[in-house]
Amino acid sequence: MKFNKHLQDIVTYEAGKPIELVVREFGISPSEIIKLASNENPFGCSKKVQEAVREIIPNMSLYPDDSMWKLKHAIGNRFSVKDDNVIIGAGSDQIIEFAMHAKSSKEGSILTNSVTFAMYEIYAKHVGARVIKTSSMQHDLNEFYELYQKHNPDIIFLCTPNNPTGDAIDSDDMIGFLKKIDSETLVVVDGAYIEYGAYKDKSKAISPKELIWQFDNVLYLGTFSKIYGLGGMRVGYGIACVDIIKTLYKLRPPFNITTLSLEAASVALSDEQFIQECLVSNFSQMKRYENFALENNIKIINSYTNFITFLLSERYNSSDLAYFLLKKGMIIRDLKGYGLNAVRITIGKPAQNDIFFKLMSEYL
Amino acid sequence: MKFNKHLQDIVTYEAGKPIELVVREFGISPSEIIKLASNENPFGCSKKVQEAVREIIPNMSLYPDDSMWKLKHAIGNRFSVKDDNVIIGAGSDQIIEFAMHAKSSKEGSILTNSVTFAMYEIYAKHVGARVIKTSSMQHDLNEFYELYQKHNPDIIFLCTPNNPTGDAIDSDDMIGFLKKIDSETLVVVDGAYIEYGAYKDKSKAISPKELIWQFDNVLYLGTFSKIYGLGGMRVGYGIACVDIIKTLYKLRPPFNITTLSLEAASVALSDEQFIQECLVSNFSQMKRYENFALENNIKIINSYTNFITFLLSERYNSSDLAYFLLKKGMIIRDLKGYGLNAVRITIGKPAQNDIFFKLMSEYL
Repeated sequence: MKFNKHLQDIVTYEAGKPIELVVREFGISPSEIIKLASNENPFGCSKKVQEAVREIIPNMSLYPDDSMWKLKHAIGNRFSVKDDNVIIGAGSDQIIEFAMHAKSSKEGSILTNSVTFAMYEIYAKHVGARVIKTSSMQHDLNEFYELYQKHNPDIIFLCTPNNPTGDAIDSDDMIGFLKKIDSETLVVVDGAYIEYGAYKDKSKAISPKELIWQFDNVLYLGTFSKIYGLGGMRVGYGIACVDIIKTLYKLRPPFNITTLSLEAASVALSDEQFIQECLVSNFSQMKRYENFALENNIKIINSYTNFITFLLSERYNSSDLAYFLLKKGMIIRDLKGYGLNAVRITIGKPAQNDIFFKLMSEYL
Repeated sequence: MKFNKHLQDIVTYEAGKPIELVVREFGISPSEIIKLASNENPFGCSKKVQEAVREIIPNMSLYPDDSMWKLKHAIGNRFSVKDDNVIIGAGSDQIIEFAMHAKSSKEGSILTNSVTFAMYEIYAKHVGARVIKTSSMQHDLNEFYELYQKHNPDIIFLCTPNNPTGDAIDSDDMIGFLKKIDSETLVVVDGAYIEYGAYKDKSKAISPKELIWQFDNVLYLGTFSKIYGLGGMRVGYGIACVDIIKTLYKLRPPFNITTLSLEAASVALSDEQFIQECLVSNFSQMKRYENFALENNIKIINSYTNFITFLLSERYNSSDLAYFLLKKGMIIRDLKGYGLNAVRITIGKPAQNDIFFKLMSEYL
C-alpha cells in the first residue's frame, strides 16, 4: 500500500533504554539496574502525589474531565496567567505536535539549534516541513537571527535549558531576540528543564506571563516529566495568548491525558517542598560530577539541568562507554545519534552516582 | 497570527459531560450523580487491574517501556497475531489519527457512515481531507460500495458495532465487501464494542487475524476503554499487516501511553472472568431497557453494545430530556449533535437503571 510520500523521511525517536530492556537483554535483576538515561527525577515523585493517585484508582474506568479545569486552573495560578492561556498535552511533546500541524506544512520550514530535543525535527517531518539548523552546538541567538532572516521559518524552537547539552539562554538575551522576530513567526520556548536553570542562576529564569504579555507569537512549554517526577504520566503544558491556545485546541484529541495523570499533575504543583529538596540534591550532586570530570580531564558543558554531558576525547568512544556501563546494569545516554562523541548522564541519588564514578573509573 | 487554513473547519469533539461538570453547574454531590453518558463500564475495572496498578504507583516517575513489549505480546497472544502486527495508541482514537496522517491529505477524502464515531470526521479535518458520508443511518454496505466507486476515498471507516446507534455488521457481509475494495484503499474496521457484539450474536464477531491474513489493506481497531473498563487510562490498539503497522509507527510519538496504563491494559487482558460477568449483566439489563421502550412506545435500535439509543417521537425533544435528567444528577447523551432526535444511554448497574426508569417515567 502506498502512503503519503513525506513519511519516508521520518526516523523514529530513540528513547533512553528502559529498565525492562536491560532485564531482557542482559538478564540483570531489575533491582540492580540503575537508569541515568532519561532525566527522570531520581527521587521519584512526591509522596502526596502517590497518595492522591492511589485514592482514585477505582476511577480508571471513567474518562477524564476533558475540560481539565482543575489542572489548567492550578497551572494558571502558578504562573499568574488565565486558564484560557493554558493547554495541556500528553507531555509537552504533544503541544509541539499541535504547533507543527497548526503553523507549518510541507511548503514551510522550522528553525532549531543544531543539537537539541529530537522531537522538533521528527514532528517537522510528520508534516513534511524543512528543518533548518544552526551550526553552533549551544544556542547562538545571533546565528538564529541570521538564519531567521534568510529562511523566514514558520516556527523557531528555543530550548532553554537545552537538552541534551545542558546550557541555557540568558532571559534578557531571549527577550532581545524575540523583539526582533516578526509577529507572524511562532517562537516556541521549551522550558522543560527551566526549574533547574532558574534555581542555579536567576538570569536564566523565564516568566511565561511576561513572555506572553509582550509577545503574541510566543508559545511557552513546560512539563511534569522532569523536576515533578512524573515522566511516566505524560503531562506537559503550553502557555500563550488566547488566540494561539484556541488554535492548538482545535488539534487536541479529546481525553489526551489519563484520569490519573490529571490528578497527579494537579497535586504535584502543590508540593513545593519536594521540588526544593530535589533541586538542592541535584546541584550538590552535580558538583561531584563536575569534580570527577575535572580530575579525569573530561570536558563538560556547564549544566543548568538535572543531567550533565561529558564530551569525550578521541581516546574514547561514547557508544563503547555506554555499552560497557549497560552490561554492568547502568543505563546512560549515548549522544552518538546527535553527532557527538559524548554521553549524557542524569544526576542520580548519591548512591547511584557513587556507582557511576566507580564504573567510570574502571573504564577510563 | 495566521495558521494553516484548513484548521478553520475543525469543530471540537463534544465529550460526554463529566461528573465534575455537573457538580460545578448544579451543585449536586458527586456521590449522587449517575453517569450513563460515555459508555464506560459501570462495574469499573477488574480488581486485579486495580491491585497491579496500585503496586507500581512509585513508577510514575519512570518513562514507560517504549517498546511496549509486554502489552503488545499480550494482545498478539490474545488474537493469535505477531507482536509486529500490533500498534498501541492513546485510545484507538490515536490510531485513527495516525492512519489519517499516513494515508489521507487535503487533496484526498474519506468515507464514513452518516451517523458514527465523531473522531473520523474530526481527524479528517485535521489533515483537510473531504468527508463523504452515506445517507443511511445504519451501515448499508451497498451504499458504501457505491460511494467508494464514485469517490475513490483514501480511507473507508466501518464501525461495528456502530457508535452511537448500536447496530452491527454481519461479519460475512463485511468480508464480502472487503473483497470488492482495491488494495490501495485503507479500510479501518473499528471494533471498540466488538466484545459486546460477539457475545450477543456470533455472526457479528470479527477475527482480526483472519481479516489481516486476507486483506493487506485492513486496519482493525480495539480498545480498553469499553468492556475492559479503562476509559480513563487511554489505551487502544491497531492490528494490521506489518507494512501498515510500520508506517503508523512512524507517526507514533514516543511514550504515547502512560506507565500505569501499560500495566493496567496488560493485566486487564488476563481477567476473563470479570469480562464475562460484565457481559452477562449488560445484556440482562439491556432487556429491561428494551421492555421499557416497548411499554412506552419508544423506538429503539437493536443494540450490540453497552448502550441503547432511544429514538424519540416528535412529542419529545432529546435536548430537553437530557437537560431534565441532568438537573436530577443523571447524565446521558443527547444525540442532537448527530442530527438525531434521540438519546444514547449507557447500560448501567441494576440500581442505576432503576433510577433511569423512574426519572424517565416522570418525564414522559
